[in-house]
Amino acid sequence: MHHLPKVPTTEIENRLKKFQNHLQQSQLDGALITQNIDIYYLTGTMQNGVLFVPKDGEPRFYVKKSVARAEFEASVPVEEMGRMKELGQKIESRYGKVSRIGLETDVLPYGLAVRYLGMFPGAEPVDISFPLRLQRAVKSRYELDQLREAARRINDIILSLPEMIRPGMSELELTAAIEYRLRLQGNINIYRMRAYNQELALGMVASGKAAATPTYFDGPAGGLGLSTASPQSASHKALAPGEPILVDISTVVEGYLVDQTRLAVIGELEEDLVRAYEVSRNILKEVEQMGRPGVAWEELYLKSLEMAKEAGLSEHFMGYGKDQAKFLGHGVGLELDELPVLAKGFKQPLEEGMVIAIEPKFTFPGRGVVGIENTYLVTGSGLEAITFAPEEIVQIRAD
Amino acid sequence: MHHLPKVPTTEIENRLKKFQNHLQQSQLDGALITQNIDIYYLTGTMQNGVLFVPKDGEPRFYVKKSVARAEFEASVPVEEMGRMKELGQKIESRYGKVSRIGLETDVLPYGLAVRYLGMFPGAEPVDISFPLRLQRAVKSRYELDQLREAARRINDIILSLPEMIRPGMSELELTAAIEYRLRLQGNINIYRMRAYNQELALGMVASGKAAATPTYFDGPAGGLGLSTASPQSASHKALAPGEPILVDISTVVEGYLVDQTRLAVIGELEEDLVRAYEVSRNILKEVEQMGRPGVAWEELYLKSLEMAKEAGLSEHFMGYGKDQAKFLGHGVGLELDELPVLAKGFKQPLEEGMVIAIEPKFTFPGRGVVGIENTYLVTGSGLEAITFAPEEIVQIRAD
Repeated sequence: MHHLPKVPTTEIENRLKKFQNHLQQSQLDGALITQNIDIYYLTGTMQNGVLFVPKDGEPRFYVKKSVARAEFEASVPVEEMGRMKELGQKIESRYGKVSRIGLETDVLPYGLAVRYLGMFPGAEPVDISFPLRLQRAVKSRYELDQLREAARRINDIILSLPEMIRPGMSELELTAAIEYRLRLQGNINIYRMRAYNQELALGMVASGKAAATPTYFDGPAGGLGLSTASPQSASHKALAPGEPILVDISTVVEGYLVDQTRLAVIGELEEDLVRAYEVSRNILKEVEQMGRPGVAWEELYLKSLEMAKEAGLSEHFMGYGKDQAKFLGHGVGLELDELPVLAKGFKQPLEEGMVIAIEPKFTFPGRGVVGIENTYLVTGSGLEAITFAPEEIVQIRAD
Repeated sequence: MHHLPKVPTTEIENRLKKFQNHLQQSQLDGALITQNIDIYYLTGTMQNGVLFVPKDGEPRFYVKKSVARAEFEASVPVEEMGRMKELGQKIESRYGKVSRIGLETDVLPYGLAVRYLGMFPGAEPVDISFPLRLQRAVKSRYELDQLREAARRINDIILSLPEMIRPGMSELELTAAIEYRLRLQGNINIYRMRAYNQELALGMVASGKAAATPTYFDGPAGGLGLSTASPQSASHKALAPGEPILVDISTVVEGYLVDQTRLAVIGELEEDLVRAYEVSRNILKEVEQMGRPGVAWEELYLKSLEMAKEAGLSEHFMGYGKDQAKFLGHGVGLELDELPVLAKGFKQPLEEGMVIAIEPKFTFPGRGVVGIENTYLVTGSGLEAITFAPEEIVQIRAD
């Protein structure tokens, strides 16, 4: 069929085992997995179908298209789905009566969910997304290899910024140049986000006033964007001397994303913005020291709030005023908005193997956004950076 | 706030009026619009919130982020959403008891739908997506202007193919070069699809055997892709002489997409593939003549099946064997998979103002995909092409 690398079978086996443990603990008869990313995670293929994972025994991927490709790529048994109305019977005749069924309630559309539930009369739906996302938050060595390769690629971009950035070029031109380089390395140019209505291309490459324009995106920087129909990130605005140029970028390797932000400036940045950037670096260094297994997710966020306050920058932290984002960081992996979420109310502990992008930033309306971001692995002894580009402000000569 | 073009207020007023007519005819008290594209269509802004459209009177956009930007961009009243649990009360105290409520059941996640329904105790949910999509299928002059500009941009790409394609370059390299040019013209690099789990970057730029690799994507051509985690479209395969090179591309102007496919070859294409390409052109010309207001959507598809059969190419039409797509075309606009759908069972009539991409294609396993695609406007007197690149096979010199 083809020679693309496959997800190792042992990966899939380990993931399914862990997931089935959860099903048993939650007294679920099984889970119906429907979203392309979750299907890929649990089977090794992203073909179109639904995966039934019973609480024990072999799962089965019922495929619409392409059956042949799914059979070739998947590490689980594949069967042609046939008529959807018979799928419930097929599943119950193989696995027995399904009374409590796990569904991805955060992404599965309502209409489809009603149809699927109709296949299992009387079955009680239980959200399976949060526990599955929690499982996915802990990365294997295979997954870390992909993330590290992604980090190498975006490091190359940062190192190339001095030759890429020309005074007078637009945010869009810089974005296009970065995208082109990443694309040639195999980036798929699709940045997957799980949250409803969230979407992204490349990241956030924006400067000065345009970067500080508030918008819908659930992140610390918004961006003017190219149109009201895509109101975020790069715009047609020219890069001007003295303005902060935020380069918050990501790339995808075998489906895995890392996230990294660096700051550039043509000429010199004003003193108070340099200071704010230093505060963001200090916050990053402080939470780097705090992060270890057992620490609650929210603790890192609360610490950052405290430090922003001490610096007199509370109103500018993670967006300005009413448009502040209420988090400090997020997991990354097959999706850009994975668990953990470093935000108030999340008292769950960090676990060894989790991967988090931490991104303290400050927004100054009319002037720009400054800040930094690295992606980290939680190890037994603390956080270890996966992204590794130099953290100094990238200075571009103004002439 | 900014100088980006806004959607004209008269557009929004006309759209809301038409939508409220539907609400009245369907005896709905109102609709809760939650998806970013539908919100943009009915308000002119894509900020984060939910739009309540009552069956009559003024709608209201309850915004989470950014309220300031929504107020600036929207042609409807904007209010800060506040606590979600109080939203139902807010709406009912303004508009009265909500007993039958429209929801976008094809995209709204189950968990969110349950929360929203909980805000209106006893309310009956009714799908509002299909009628809203049907309304969106008919384009205004403003919308056609955006589509025509998009058509100009992808025409430029086709005209540039002889200088862009070099023997030995990979599908990915060609894709990156096309994307770079489109990006500099303002393409947002996000290709919106409504269907669950469908995603796309640029379109389908693929050649020979790789193009004919079956995959999940609900289209006539699949493509090998760059990884099992993105199993479609361009791969690392080199463009080789004598193979069909499918250039199925799109670009976005003020949110609007058109769709166009042309065929290129380095050197000469084998005779039977040239013949299959001619059959696809003949099908296109034939359905061009058939398409007019009042004709059922499925009729165009059924005609194409008949013509593929007459040519002895049934098994190759719109994919090969079991992996055939079961349609001939689809609407385009703010999303790439709009109504109408030219497929069996859709007996609804074409209406003046609808915009359809029609894409007869033939797949030859191990050899490639040939075919053509234009985007058309349904006028009172028949179909009028919006895309207009030359339809001959683009010949690239092999040396």
